[in-house]
Amino acid sequence: MAVRVGVVGVGVMGADHARKIATVVSGAELVAVSDFDATVADCVAAELGARVHADGVALIEDDDVDAVIIATRDDTHAGLVRAALRVGKPVMCEKPLAPTAAESAALVQEQAGAELITVGFMRRFDPSYVALRERVVRGELGAPLVAHCISRTVSAYPGGDSASSITNSAIHELDIVPWLLDSPIIEVSYQHGRSSANAGTRQDPQIYLLRTASDVLVTVELFLNARYGYDTRCEIVMETGAVALTLPAHVVTDAERHRGVDYPADWILRYSDAYRIELQEWVDSLNQRRSSTLAGAADGLRAAQVADALVASMHSNGAWTAVAD
Amino acid sequence: MAVRVGVVGVGVMGADHARKIATVVSGAELVAVSDFDATVADCVAAELGARVHADGVALIEDDDVDAVIIATRDDTHAGLVRAALRVGKPVMCEKPLAPTAAESAALVQEQAGAELITVGFMRRFDPSYVALRERVVRGELGAPLVAHCISRTVSAYPGGDSASSITNSAIHELDIVPWLLDSPIIEVSYQHGRSSANAGTRQDPQIYLLRTASDVLVTVELFLNARYGYDTRCEIVMETGAVALTLPAHVVTDAERHRGVDYPADWILRYSDAYRIELQEWVDSLNQRRSSTLAGAADGLRAAQVADALVASMHSNGAWTAVAD
Amino acid sequence: MAVRVGVVGVGVMGADHARKIATVVSGAELVAVSDFDATVADCVAAELGARVHADGVALIEDDDVDAVIIATRDDTHAGLVRAALRVGKPVMCEKPLAPTAAESAALVQEQAGAELITVGFMRRFDPSYVALRERVVRGELGAPLVAHCISRTVSAYPGGDSASSITNSAIHELDIVPWLLDSPIIEVSYQHGRSSANAGTRQDPQIYLLRTASDVLVTVELFLNARYGYDTRCEIVMETGAVALTLPAHVVTDAERHRGVDYPADWILRYSDAYRIELQEWVDSLNQRRSSTLAGAADGLRAAQVADALVASMHSNGAWTAVAD
Amino acid sequence: MAVRVGVVGVGVMGADHARKIATVVSGAELVAVSDFDATVADCVAAELGARVHADGVALIEDDDVDAVIIATRDDTHAGLVRAALRVGKPVMCEKPLAPTAAESAALVQEQAGAELITVGFMRRFDPSYVALRERVVRGELGAPLVAHCISRTVSAYPGGDSASSITNSAIHELDIVPWLLDSPIIEVSYQHGRSSANAGTRQDPQIYLLRTASDVLVTVELFLNARYGYDTRCEIVMETGAVALTLPAHVVTDAERHRGVDYPADWILRYSDAYRIELQEWVDSLNQRRSSTLAGAADGLRAAQVADALVASMHSNGAWTAVAD
Repeated sequence: MAVRVGVVGVGVMGADHARKIATVVSGAELVAVSDFDATVADCVAAELGARVHADGVALIEDDDVDAVIIATRDDTHAGLVRAALRVGKPVMCEKPLAPTAAESAALVQEQAGAELITVGFMRRFDPSYVALRERVVRGELGAPLVAHCISRTVSAYPGGDSASSITNSAIHELDIVPWLLDSPIIEVSYQHGRSSANAGTRQDPQIYLLRTASDVLVTVELFLNARYGYDTRCEIVMETGAVALTLPAHVVTDAERHRGVDYPADWILRYSDAYRIELQEWVDSLNQRRSSTLAGAADGLRAAQVADALVASMHSNGAWTAVAD
Repeated sequence: MAVRVGVVGVGVMGADHARKIATVVSGAELVAVSDFDATVADCVAAELGARVHADGVALIEDDDVDAVIIATRDDTHAGLVRAALRVGKPVMCEKPLAPTAAESAALVQEQAGAELITVGFMRRFDPSYVALRERVVRGELGAPLVAHCISRTVSAYPGGDSASSITNSAIHELDIVPWLLDSPIIEVSYQHGRSSANAGTRQDPQIYLLRTASDVLVTVELFLNARYGYDTRCEIVMETGAVALTLPAHVVTDAERHRGVDYPADWILRYSDAYRIELQEWVDSLNQRRSSTLAGAADGLRAAQVADALVASMHSNGAWTAVAD
Repeated sequence: MAVRVGVVGVGVMGADHARKIATVVSGAELVAVSDFDATVADCVAAELGARVHADGVALIEDDDVDAVIIATRDDTHAGLVRAALRVGKPVMCEKPLAPTAAESAALVQEQAGAELITVGFMRRFDPSYVALRERVVRGELGAPLVAHCISRTVSAYPGGDSASSITNSAIHELDIVPWLLDSPIIEVSYQHGRSSANAGTRQDPQIYLLRTASDVLVTVELFLNARYGYDTRCEIVMETGAVALTLPAHVVTDAERHRGVDYPADWILRYSDAYRIELQEWVDSLNQRRSSTLAGAADGLRAAQVADALVASMHSNGAWTAVAD
Repeated sequence: MAVRVGVVGVGVMGADHARKIATVVSGAELVAVSDFDATVADCVAAELGARVHADGVALIEDDDVDAVIIATRDDTHAGLVRAALRVGKPVMCEKPLAPTAAESAALVQEQAGAELITVGFMRRFDPSYVALRERVVRGELGAPLVAHCISRTVSAYPGGDSASSITNSAIHELDIVPWLLDSPIIEVSYQHGRSSANAGTRQDPQIYLLRTASDVLVTVELFLNARYGYDTRCEIVMETGAVALTLPAHVVTDAERHRGVDYPADWILRYSDAYRIELQEWVDSLNQRRSSTLAGAADGLRAAQVADALVASMHSNGAWTAVAD
């Protein structure tokens, strides 16, 4: 009766998903994995007791697979999602749906079955973001007026550029901001100053201004080479008060003339609970034959469109740029 | 292949266990519940899709039940544990095993099967306590020298007395301290001063001094009517530094000239993750036919013996009192 | 041998200065006060044992007055500063030197004695800002890349408009940012979204982008009607780490399911130490016949020029606007 | 008109007092210093523009000295205080008044002029302790029930023993606790466990239980070789809430996977403001010919008596010991 899940792509992210499905998600079973690197696939399969498919499409078409998680390289997502839709199987695809908003739009609009697609914007399930949104929704402090988001990581993946900082990394901010404020982003401006000596040819840090349909102005700092730790912050300022994420930490240490807490090294540690809860909700929705609260295809498309507008602003010297519908 | 779990006693605590087994623990299935209040049992069963047994022993003996959780009134624990051991089924019993250390000792020593017993000292699975212990074990700051524990709740259950504060509430401290310090408590002293106006005939707050075999001196404050919130604190002071639990909070609020975070109202909210992880480990151990890292019968007995020594100290004007073996 | 100080304007701010000169600044003596409201002047004089002058210029020309503090209405500052320069007396003028940058420039450039002028940018003496700057200067975390400033107050003074938010309130940010980053602001952009229901015709909150000569990009939020408290924040992000002001608080309170600290109600409470230290440095510099580390006339002028550029950007739909030299 | 102050003993503590009198206390003037080490005295005198006396008593008898600060070795305090009383000059004596409570009692009781004595319990002027006391006095959270104090320093002075930890270091706790709770300490118990490897022959850390006349039970940890920093904590638990000192810090730093604040290295840094405010109050009281809010001779004596009781408890295996009147 458990949902039988297959995972395509078991690198760091996909292996984490596979492990959670196999060991901490109720009502699901890991039955198959695949990876372009056969050794990696074998290793994960052996650890978790799953079958290996040499090819992602073959896994998707396997009759023993009820539902599919896609965690492969970005440029393969759209093709694999299409394969899942063809056989009518629910698919949880890591962001982005496709490398460009146009391709995402094509995917969403071209064919039946978009309701089978969910997108891995796990922050929506992070207990901190959930608590933050709950405070906004509750309305005790009045309507939101401005918000400030900061997203810092230890170091950027090699090989990216200023645009990929937006489309690959900032994309999480671009999804979560409208979710928190319950209003879509309609206009954006890209700004930058001095870059880190570690930034290579990339502009890093970057600053964005986002405007929602409700006219909330949002500042975002994205800094991929921040070095000191993986650090996500968000504050929402309302009429009579403000609410912000805390830095999650279990213990505080006193040592060497210093009192402090540790940062997680990466997003998998920071969002471990969020991933678990997201997968549980996805599996529950499948078992209960209802729609889930995960981000859907339209959400994935919208975030990509906002990212595109930011890239366009970047190429227009920071001009305010409308988000295409 | 999932472990089929039955829950005896589905009041607040037991219903929470039942719900977790049914919805967020991997590899388990909730098959049966029972409660002395049939309406309560029916309600939980209907919500979670389990069968109802009118009687706890009948549930335990049900062939469809592989493993049993006991969350009934304290004075029924020992009898139900015995029933489970008789049919050779693993049992997770909420603390205490029995109302007195002597009865717990009888239970542990009298018959085969004590290895089937685990005791619900969930703090051992709380990520904060785990991180705290990990810092002690790692040894970077040297050996522990003193520790300070504080356990405050909003209000005491009606009907208790000074002794039941120790045996029912402080018992969690008495289990976690030796677990954290990796050394048993060998000597205790009970102290008190002025009691809260809300304390009734109970001495509340109470202060304990505990001494481990490794000669770490521990102060404990237990304050059941602290009113302001459910607040558990622990600090371990080592040779060159100290580590302490943080107050877990997802968001910080600015409002009305104040910046702050909220306290949970009770232990079920504070230890929600701990309960889930504890149950997952229990189920995993059953599925993998290995011993678990849950507290065992000997741990439950030891905590009861330390509690007894504290009660004895209370009756001896606070004298240092050795813990009976 | 003590410096004999006269204070022109003893409203809330000036009375605080007078009180500090009289009671907690070493090497100074309060000898005279004046105020356009004679009752106020009499009251402060009686409390602190000073003489009253009906007229500010008469106070300035009093032979028993060695040095003058000006804390009157903004539009009277320039005339009083001129009066002090005419008689060659050192003057500590609350910001701004003059209502417009042009008038400030005229004052600074027209006549001898500008070195006698200091401007009351007290944040330069706040221990938190001093510690923040010290960390930047020390350079351990590398060069500054971006900075984020937030300045919130409980409610705006009545009668102002969007421009006066900049010239009167944000002016402190416009002085402290280049002081912290050791580089002048050369370009600014004014942004706003939805305003608070309490904002009247004013745009509030406002967001600014500032760029220093060293190409550090700075975001500033100014929110005068933030209601919840007086809250000044600043974070400087460097190559390998970040440093930020703490919220100063002496005690933390647990009550009503909440743990938190109190905000000061206003700037006089928040910056009480800063004012004292600033005045002490001013008096010391006079006694020691050396230049002080207070902001000088050129600093006051520069901040006014940055404010003017922000107002110009506001009138140009947020366009990046160069700061005039 | 300023109070002319002489400082006897200008080691680290005395030089700090001399510097504050000379540079940041209003209404006072530093006129003379002396020290058993003539080079030290000359150096401080040169820096601050004071005269040097070879002998403390000569300084005290100098007609140009109105009031005296004593910051010499503990065993010289009583003699110097006597010298000041003989010539009727106010004296601010660093704790302790005398090496033993008996000698302090003799000093206080034997002769006229005890009202001229104040004792340097500077914590009474620390803004944090003042805020803490204010919350207790305000009574919003009900009566105090228990309190927890922690006093940790980087390393113990060489040459002390377990008793001198109490009489020299813990003495500050023994003064501040009754001041905070507005009730004298009437009974004490000394406890210890494992000592730090750095403790030498001293028991360190030490734990005390104190009981006030109002039956508030107080736990105190004193740990002189805590290594990690100079750390003073205090929490007072009342009927419906608790109030505690914060760790004062101006900035928070993010670096190397860590977020934290720095500890001061010693008491002079931690209590810098307290010393300044204490000296200002002392000088103000002299200028205004009124009694001050500094600790008086009776307070110094009482703290010494509580310390004696703790030493007696230490020699009685931790037995509860009444404080002698």
